[in-house]
Amino acid sequence: MSNSNGNAIVAQSGGPSAVINQSLVGVIEGLRAASLNGGGVGTIFGARHGVRGMLPESERLVDLTGVPAQTLELVAGTPSAALGSSRDKPDAAYCEKVLATLRRRLVRYFFYIGGNDSSDTCRIVSEMAAGSGYDLRCFHVPKTIDNDLMMNDHTPGYASAARFVATAFMGDNLDNRALPGIKINVVMGRHAGFLTGASALMKQREDDGPHLVYVPEVAFDLERVAGEVEAVYRRLGRCLIAVSEGVQRADGTPLLRALTGAGKEKDAHGNVRLSGTGALGDALAEELSRRLTPVGGGAPRTRADTLGYAQRYWPDASPVDRAEARASARFAVEAAMKGGVRSGSITITRATGVGGGYAVEYGLVDLALVAGKTRHMPPEFLEGTSGVTPAFTQWLRPMVGEMPRVGWL
Amino acid sequence: MSNSNGNAIVAQSGGPSAVINQSLVGVIEGLRAASLNGGGVGTIFGARHGVRGMLPESERLVDLTGVPAQTLELVAGTPSAALGSSRDKPDAAYCEKVLATLRRRLVRYFFYIGGNDSSDTCRIVSEMAAGSGYDLRCFHVPKTIDNDLMMNDHTPGYASAARFVATAFMGDNLDNRALPGIKINVVMGRHAGFLTGASALMKQREDDGPHLVYVPEVAFDLERVAGEVEAVYRRLGRCLIAVSEGVQRADGTPLLRALTGAGKEKDAHGNVRLSGTGALGDALAEELSRRLTPVGGGAPRTRADTLGYAQRYWPDASPVDRAEARASARFAVEAAMKGGVRSGSITITRATGVGGGYAVEYGLVDLALVAGKTRHMPPEFLEGTSGVTPAFTQWLRPMVGEMPRVGWL
Repeated sequence: MSNSNGNAIVAQSGGPSAVINQSLVGVIEGLRAASLNGGGVGTIFGARHGVRGMLPESERLVDLTGVPAQTLELVAGTPSAALGSSRDKPDAAYCEKVLATLRRRLVRYFFYIGGNDSSDTCRIVSEMAAGSGYDLRCFHVPKTIDNDLMMNDHTPGYASAARFVATAFMGDNLDNRALPGIKINVVMGRHAGFLTGASALMKQREDDGPHLVYVPEVAFDLERVAGEVEAVYRRLGRCLIAVSEGVQRADGTPLLRALTGAGKEKDAHGNVRLSGTGALGDALAEELSRRLTPVGGGAPRTRADTLGYAQRYWPDASPVDRAEARASARFAVEAAMKGGVRSGSITITRATGVGGGYAVEYGLVDLALVAGKTRHMPPEFLEGTSGVTPAFTQWLRPMVGEMPRVGWL
Repeated sequence: MSNSNGNAIVAQSGGPSAVINQSLVGVIEGLRAASLNGGGVGTIFGARHGVRGMLPESERLVDLTGVPAQTLELVAGTPSAALGSSRDKPDAAYCEKVLATLRRRLVRYFFYIGGNDSSDTCRIVSEMAAGSGYDLRCFHVPKTIDNDLMMNDHTPGYASAARFVATAFMGDNLDNRALPGIKINVVMGRHAGFLTGASALMKQREDDGPHLVYVPEVAFDLERVAGEVEAVYRRLGRCLIAVSEGVQRADGTPLLRALTGAGKEKDAHGNVRLSGTGALGDALAEELSRRLTPVGGGAPRTRADTLGYAQRYWPDASPVDRAEARASARFAVEAAMKGGVRSGSITITRATGVGGGYAVEYGLVDLALVAGKTRHMPPEFLEGTSGVTPAFTQWLRPMVGEMPRVGWL
C-alpha cells in the first residue's frame, strides 16, 4: 500500500498527558480523511517510544493504517501515550539516524506530538532533510501539561491537568477546613506556574484555600513565605498552600536544593529531578514548622502532599481539552497536506466566540519560534508574591469543563 | 421546638471521606422521617469538630432541624466533613464533659459518624449515661477509608477511596508503560491493606501493574522485596509497586522508621505520623536504587509518589458507597427510634442479591465488638508476599462503580 505522497509517521514524546492520545488519533483520522479526498498517504506508521522507535538499532514501528475506528476512539479516551513515549533529547547525530529510517521507510510526513523539546527535534530533522534534498514535512503537534509553549494561549494537556489540580485543591480545602492545619501541596511545573495557579480555580468563599500560591515566576524567599503562612494561620487557624515544584530563590537556586542540598540528580535533559519525590514538600513543611510561632506548646500541625504523576495520567480529562487536542492534530495534518510550508508547530490562540464566549483558533508558526523556548505566566495573572488574579481564573475557567458543586452547613 | 423524645445530636470524627456527609444527611433525613411519623425529636443539633464541639469550653452546636432539603443534597455530595472533624480520642474525663453538654441540651439521641475510635467514644458516653441514670441512645455510624472495622464486610468511605486508588494505578500503569521505570506509589492504610489492594483492581493485561502489592498484613523484608522488584524489572523493563504506608518489618518496626530513623513524631492517638509526608516512598525508592543491579551504568530510574489526602477527599465518590453511607445512617436512626437497645454500631454485611448479584444488609452490633478494634485483610485475599487474589478483586469490584475503559495500540 503506497502512493505518490509516500508514507506518514506519528510519534509521542515527553511526559504523557490525559489527551495526548486524542492528538494521536487526530493525526490518524486526518490522514485517513485526506486519503478519502484522494490526497492521502500510503502507510501510517506509529513509532514506539518517540524518536527512539525510529533509530535503526531500536526501530519499532507499528502500522496504524487499518486500526478500526472503534479502537481509535477507545485509545483517544485513554490517558498516557498509547505508542509509548521518550525522554530522549536528540542531537544532530541522533537526528541523522532518525532521518535515515524515515528515508528508508519512504516517509514524507512526520508528526511529532510533544513539548518544546519535540518541537526542536522536528526543527533539526526538517532542516537536515531540506539540506540533503529529501522532501519531508515535519509538523509539531503541541502537548504539555505545564502550558509553557511560546506562541500559544494554551496547549493540549494543560486543561486536563489543571482540572485535576483544581479538583484536588477543592477537596483539600474542604479537608483542611474539617481538620485544620498547615497543608502544602506541591504541583508540577518546572518553569511556569500555570498549573499551580489552577489550584485557586474553585475558591468560592472568602476563607477558601489555597490561601497562598507560589509559582516559579516569583522568587521564593523563605523568610517572607514563613511570614505569609503565619499571617494566614493566625487569621484562619489553617493554611492551604500551593507550591510549584520549580520554585526558586532570587539567585536562581531551586528551593529543593536550597533546603536539602539534594536535587543533584539530573535527568536526561540535564534538569534537576523534581517529580517523583516528596522531598520538596517534606523539606518545606519541616522548615515552616521550625519557623512558625508554636501554638499550645508545639509547632502548628504541618503536612505536605506532592500531587505527583496523577496530574498527567488522571483519566477524567477536560472535555474541552479532549476536543482541542484532537482538533489541533487534525489541523496539523491539513496544514501538512496543503503544502506550501515544509514544517511548523500548531498553535492555539483565543478567538471571540458567539456572544463573547470561549472559542479558539488553530494556527501554524515557524518551529524556531517554539523550539526549546519556555513561556511564563504573564504579569497580569500574578497577584503580589503569593496569588493569582481573577484575570487568571477567568482565563482558565472555560477550559476545564464542568466541576463538582459544593454544599456547606 | 421540642417534644417528649428530647433532642438529637450528630457529629463527624476522624479522617474525612468522600461520603461521610452522606451519612450526616442520612441521620438528619432519618430524624425528620421519624418526626413525620409522630415519633421524632425536637431539635437536631450538629456539633462542630466532633465531640470537641460538645465540650462546655468549646461548645459549637448548629441547629440542623430546618436546613432545606436542597442544601442537604448538595452537602451529601460534597467530600470531607461538613460539620468539621476531630482527632481527639476522649478519655473518661472528656466524656463526662460531653455528657454534661448533652444533658444540658436535653439530648436523648447521639449519632457519631467515624471509625473505631468514635465507636469507643460512643461506648464510654453510653455507659456513663446509663450509670448516671440518664436516658441516652448512642449510635455509631461507621466511616473509614481503611476498611478496618470489625464485624463489617466493608464500611462507608472505603469504596470511594478504593475507586480513587484503582483509578490512580490504572493511569499510572499506562504512564509507566509509556515511560518505563520503577515506580512506587504509597497508599493509605496503617494496619489494613484493603485500600492498597484496590491498586490491583483494574489490571487487565498480563503485564499490567501494579506488579507488586505490599500490605501491612505481610511482614516487609527489604531483601526479599528488592529481589521481587528486580525480577519484575528484568522481565518487563518496568515495575509498578503499591505499598501501604503502614508496612512493617517482621519485628513490628514500621518500615518508615526502619529506613529513616524518623517516624518519631506521633499524633494525638500516639500513632507514628505516616500521612502527609513523602518520606516512606522516597526512602524506599532510594533503598531500591541502591540494591538493584545497575542498568547501562546507573541504577534503574526509580520514582515514588504518595497518593496522599486525595484518597479521602476526592469528590468522584463511588455511587454504591454514596448510597450505602446514606442508608447505614438511616438504619442507625431507625434502630435508635425503635428502642429496645441503648446503643450500637451499624454494620454492613454481604447478602445475596437478585441473580446472585451484589447486595448488602445493614445490622446492629454491640459497640464493644467494634470499639478500638482493628480488622485485617483475611488470608484468602492475600496472594503470596506481594499480591492480592482474584477473590479480593471480585469482592471489591461491585463496590466502586463504573470505571474508565482503556484502549491499546
